[in-house]
Amino acid sequence: MAQRGTLGVAVIGTGKMGADHVRRLDQVTNGARVAAVVDVDAERVKRIADGIEGCTAHTDAAAAMASDGVDAVLIASPGPAHEAALLTAFEHDLPVLCEKPLTPGSESALRVLEAEQKVGHRLVQVGFMRRYDTEYAKLKALLNTGQLGRPLMLHNRHRNVATPPGFTSEMLINDSVVHEMDITRWLLDQEITAVTVLKPTPSGNAPEGLQDPQFVVFETAGGAIVDVEINVNCGFGYQVQAEVVCERGTARIGDGHALVTNQAGRWGGTIAQDFVERFEDAYDRQVQAWVDATRRGEVTGPSAWDGYATAAVCEAGVRAQNEGGRIEVELVERPAFYS
Amino acid sequence: MAQRGTLGVAVIGTGKMGADHVRRLDQVTNGARVAAVVDVDAERVKRIADGIEGCTAHTDAAAAMASDGVDAVLIASPGPAHEAALLTAFEHDLPVLCEKPLTPGSESALRVLEAEQKVGHRLVQVGFMRRYDTEYAKLKALLNTGQLGRPLMLHNRHRNVATPPGFTSEMLINDSVVHEMDITRWLLDQEITAVTVLKPTPSGNAPEGLQDPQFVVFETAGGAIVDVEINVNCGFGYQVQAEVVCERGTARIGDGHALVTNQAGRWGGTIAQDFVERFEDAYDRQVQAWVDATRRGEVTGPSAWDGYATAAVCEAGVRAQNEGGRIEVELVERPAFYS
Amino acid sequence: MAQRGTLGVAVIGTGKMGADHVRRLDQVTNGARVAAVVDVDAERVKRIADGIEGCTAHTDAAAAMASDGVDAVLIASPGPAHEAALLTAFEHDLPVLCEKPLTPGSESALRVLEAEQKVGHRLVQVGFMRRYDTEYAKLKALLNTGQLGRPLMLHNRHRNVATPPGFTSEMLINDSVVHEMDITRWLLDQEITAVTVLKPTPSGNAPEGLQDPQFVVFETAGGAIVDVEINVNCGFGYQVQAEVVCERGTARIGDGHALVTNQAGRWGGTIAQDFVERFEDAYDRQVQAWVDATRRGEVTGPSAWDGYATAAVCEAGVRAQNEGGRIEVELVERPAFYS
Amino acid sequence: MAQRGTLGVAVIGTGKMGADHVRRLDQVTNGARVAAVVDVDAERVKRIADGIEGCTAHTDAAAAMASDGVDAVLIASPGPAHEAALLTAFEHDLPVLCEKPLTPGSESALRVLEAEQKVGHRLVQVGFMRRYDTEYAKLKALLNTGQLGRPLMLHNRHRNVATPPGFTSEMLINDSVVHEMDITRWLLDQEITAVTVLKPTPSGNAPEGLQDPQFVVFETAGGAIVDVEINVNCGFGYQVQAEVVCERGTARIGDGHALVTNQAGRWGGTIAQDFVERFEDAYDRQVQAWVDATRRGEVTGPSAWDGYATAAVCEAGVRAQNEGGRIEVELVERPAFYS
Repeated sequence: MAQRGTLGVAVIGTGKMGADHVRRLDQVTNGARVAAVVDVDAERVKRIADGIEGCTAHTDAAAAMASDGVDAVLIASPGPAHEAALLTAFEHDLPVLCEKPLTPGSESALRVLEAEQKVGHRLVQVGFMRRYDTEYAKLKALLNTGQLGRPLMLHNRHRNVATPPGFTSEMLINDSVVHEMDITRWLLDQEITAVTVLKPTPSGNAPEGLQDPQFVVFETAGGAIVDVEINVNCGFGYQVQAEVVCERGTARIGDGHALVTNQAGRWGGTIAQDFVERFEDAYDRQVQAWVDATRRGEVTGPSAWDGYATAAVCEAGVRAQNEGGRIEVELVERPAFYS
Repeated sequence: MAQRGTLGVAVIGTGKMGADHVRRLDQVTNGARVAAVVDVDAERVKRIADGIEGCTAHTDAAAAMASDGVDAVLIASPGPAHEAALLTAFEHDLPVLCEKPLTPGSESALRVLEAEQKVGHRLVQVGFMRRYDTEYAKLKALLNTGQLGRPLMLHNRHRNVATPPGFTSEMLINDSVVHEMDITRWLLDQEITAVTVLKPTPSGNAPEGLQDPQFVVFETAGGAIVDVEINVNCGFGYQVQAEVVCERGTARIGDGHALVTNQAGRWGGTIAQDFVERFEDAYDRQVQAWVDATRRGEVTGPSAWDGYATAAVCEAGVRAQNEGGRIEVELVERPAFYS
Repeated sequence: MAQRGTLGVAVIGTGKMGADHVRRLDQVTNGARVAAVVDVDAERVKRIADGIEGCTAHTDAAAAMASDGVDAVLIASPGPAHEAALLTAFEHDLPVLCEKPLTPGSESALRVLEAEQKVGHRLVQVGFMRRYDTEYAKLKALLNTGQLGRPLMLHNRHRNVATPPGFTSEMLINDSVVHEMDITRWLLDQEITAVTVLKPTPSGNAPEGLQDPQFVVFETAGGAIVDVEINVNCGFGYQVQAEVVCERGTARIGDGHALVTNQAGRWGGTIAQDFVERFEDAYDRQVQAWVDATRRGEVTGPSAWDGYATAAVCEAGVRAQNEGGRIEVELVERPAFYS
Repeated sequence: MAQRGTLGVAVIGTGKMGADHVRRLDQVTNGARVAAVVDVDAERVKRIADGIEGCTAHTDAAAAMASDGVDAVLIASPGPAHEAALLTAFEHDLPVLCEKPLTPGSESALRVLEAEQKVGHRLVQVGFMRRYDTEYAKLKALLNTGQLGRPLMLHNRHRNVATPPGFTSEMLINDSVVHEMDITRWLLDQEITAVTVLKPTPSGNAPEGLQDPQFVVFETAGGAIVDVEINVNCGFGYQVQAEVVCERGTARIGDGHALVTNQAGRWGGTIAQDFVERFEDAYDRQVQAWVDATRRGEVTGPSAWDGYATAAVCEAGVRAQNEGGRIEVELVERPAFYS
């Protein structure tokens, strides 16, 4: 039996991301245990469950959520499976940490919003883990002091070494720029109202058919202009940088100056090569924050509304990519439930 | 009598910029002397001439250019007077360093181009002095090695502490962003083909009626996307930064890290407060380079074509400001004379 | 009952450091629980134990170590109490994480070494938590690659905002420079063979009677020269920096460039104000590493030998402070047990 | 004939350094001309003089100084020839810019001091050109404001890629560390009172017989401690860094962050490869400042006393190298003439 107060978590999906969350809950997080794991691959899920005391294996998410010792759910299955898993969790009144996207598309996200409101209290945290990155958190805290004044512009750089096979221009918006959409909304505390996508001549590093890099511009409800360099075959490293330009100053993160060397005619340091190296701590903090809040009976972090709003911005972004020009973002009115 | 080979320069205009050039030629530059000064203010120009051995005072540019010992002309009068002064210099076949703008508008610039071509050899260098800044020069040299691959994007920041009274939104394009227009054309060695201007909610620091900051986007003939944050009432300092994003890496200048202090809970350094502090060396190098080339019988540096092309981009920029959306830049075909 | 495999830890001492370790084990660390707490203040220790499920309160360390559910010991009592607590832990064959110093003096440290060797296997990890700091770890990893060649010099900066009342020149060596002693031995993998202390005219910030700052020089068995600026009333922040100078390059940590701002004529960032802000993660990682190793049945991290060797260097350092000149460090031969 | 007020300079010595000064005076400096050149190599000196209008060639320094149009002398001959050249210049009452060292040794330097005092006014500026480096000048200006409080320590790094053949341990003090001796005296405005030299195991890059790197410690009259890493076969670049630690903060120069690149998994920039790249501007400014002052009838910059004092510190440094331990610096009392 688990220690009283230890949170029993059912992890839905044990692919790369899900398996990492299982490891994290089991070996890193304080106050939680993996009570159940779910995957369509019965053999795989049994192998994982066998390695963890008191953990049961399931091929059906609903069965896992109904099983003994499950106090909360972490959804890490593919996006199209999220809506069903969320609705089932709502039936069991279970708090959920749902990997991004909430659902793939604003229509299904709206259905989730309605269902959560019917439950009558918040249950969902969406996995926008950048909010838990130490540097972004410092930037947000600085903005909140007001000492720099109102934000006017936000410049973002988002660079990956290379894309995996099959990566499409749509994924560039939905999987990559989606992070800047969330960060923009969170840092500025404003909705995004329009998206424009500009396309330079593609890099010679970009695979055939992928328009890379792109330059994406957001406008926000408060009149800020936000630009994103999305550059996912830059070759040299994984880099995430942000500079907020405010009325009385600017603030920048992402330079990564921890270790500086002088060698062979050059000074400088290494650039992280992937998001695990850059954001591992943020993933750890995200899950710990979710476990801590859930044990206190609270729901904090990015809400289902954040999931819905970014889905709507993604849809505008993909249209801007395909049609050119400036595309306005359409959002339903924000329910008081999410204010 | 001047040392053989010493370049006798007539300086047209002795306002703030012209007076500084007189001081520079007299006290900083090697191999030149101020042979004549011109200003509509007869008393002022006499006072200046009296302080310099062998220097004559004039209220008429043509008379100055015709006077003994004048080998070259530096035009620092107000923009509307440039065309006449340039045409007079062409009549005397005198090499000219002409402060920006070449002329205020692409039509008059075209007339200058035609007149220079009639002379049959280049006489004009336009005062785009950023090309002589050590950091920009290093950036250009790095791009020229080809080791970073083809440029895809160029991010610029151009920040001033505050604008003087009477500064207008048009001046923001014509006097400030014009530097990034020249730098873009020079660094990328490509013409600018379209301009878009985005306007965030103005800063509380901006004077009534001035839309500041603005976010300007250029497209270039080679398919690069260039963005400029122009932010001329930022309050905290004068900052000029540029990052070129290429296929195999990026390169950035303008951080200004020369002196780093730890004090009172903060590490860091001071930010220059004006362009003199930031670009004084560039002005010195520009004039020295012009004097050296002229003494060798050569014309180097930004040409009248560069003056014309930026004038045309400025016109597109002002239209983009006023009309919104994307404005294409119209250029005449580049004469072989300027290739 | 605790989850199988969860490590039951007795925490000896619940002062500032001990209470923080109780919180860490209870709320941050994965796989451990606080099974017992010990303090001479019976009321205080009861209050702490009452807040943690399954935790017993003790005023006697031996009783705590003998109690049910105690699998390991964390010693955070004052230095003079360490030796007795360590010997008791050895009697119960319990793994120990012992806050620095191992014991206050090399003689008592030698007794601990002998006792641990009699047990026949390693039980002690000393709390030199800097080894768990991400930046130091990166520096060590880089040195281990060998790409920079052999270390020749190591420059250290150790700056505190201000000292608490009662801070003495001896504490400057024993409590502050002791960290650089351990880091030097660990980074270079060499013993320190001599210490010299140079004393500038004291800072006006230093309290009456405290010689601050000081400049300490170590020589090592491999012929490296190490300097330490110890500057504990610097006023501006808490800063720990290190640069290793090797045959083919140098590497530096401690610049702390995460968040860079431009404001009010200055660029830069904030400096941490205390060791908690700078090294909180290192403390977390240290305890997690100790818990993980202990659960695997291993003893890793700084050993009792490291505790002894730094105690001997501290003694030489205090003599160098008092007598001036260069003082050689006397070490017993390193037992094979600790190799 | 030269322009009235143009300074006619005789350059003594046309080796690498002298030839560079000839080029500088002829092509870079404002207000000076090369009136005479002197070298023992008659053919070489004639070739140089022939390239410059109004310049005469000499194999004898005294003849050059007596020749028409010579208003000032720049001594760039080997050190042992300096004393005679200086005394001759004094006979002609000619202002002198003398390359470092003033003379090779404090005894001969004392004779120069006496001779200059007999002239009755200052004539000598010694070529400690680092004082004219922009970064050092900013550091000095910051110290002069007093905002950081009194200097307590000064940390220096002095790194060269590699030494030329024949470079000895004595030259390491006399030719390299001599710069930090001057900078220390100038920045802190205090004499150096003692020198200690520590020798790590030599780098594998150091040529046979050269003890490199070394770690040199100065004590100053005001109780400051100064350390110098002198590392002249570091392999990676030419680096000169300095951090002054004061009562209320520290200030550092020499990071050289002008151009920052991201490429191939690394961020950072290039390191200068020699002193020309790093200090070319300082040489230019030094000569211009000397010419400007001389034309105004003033003598500014490092004095013969500075030349003497560094010679005495060099002698102590070489003794500390050879004998080990701490060697006190012996200085005559500073004549009021030099205060």
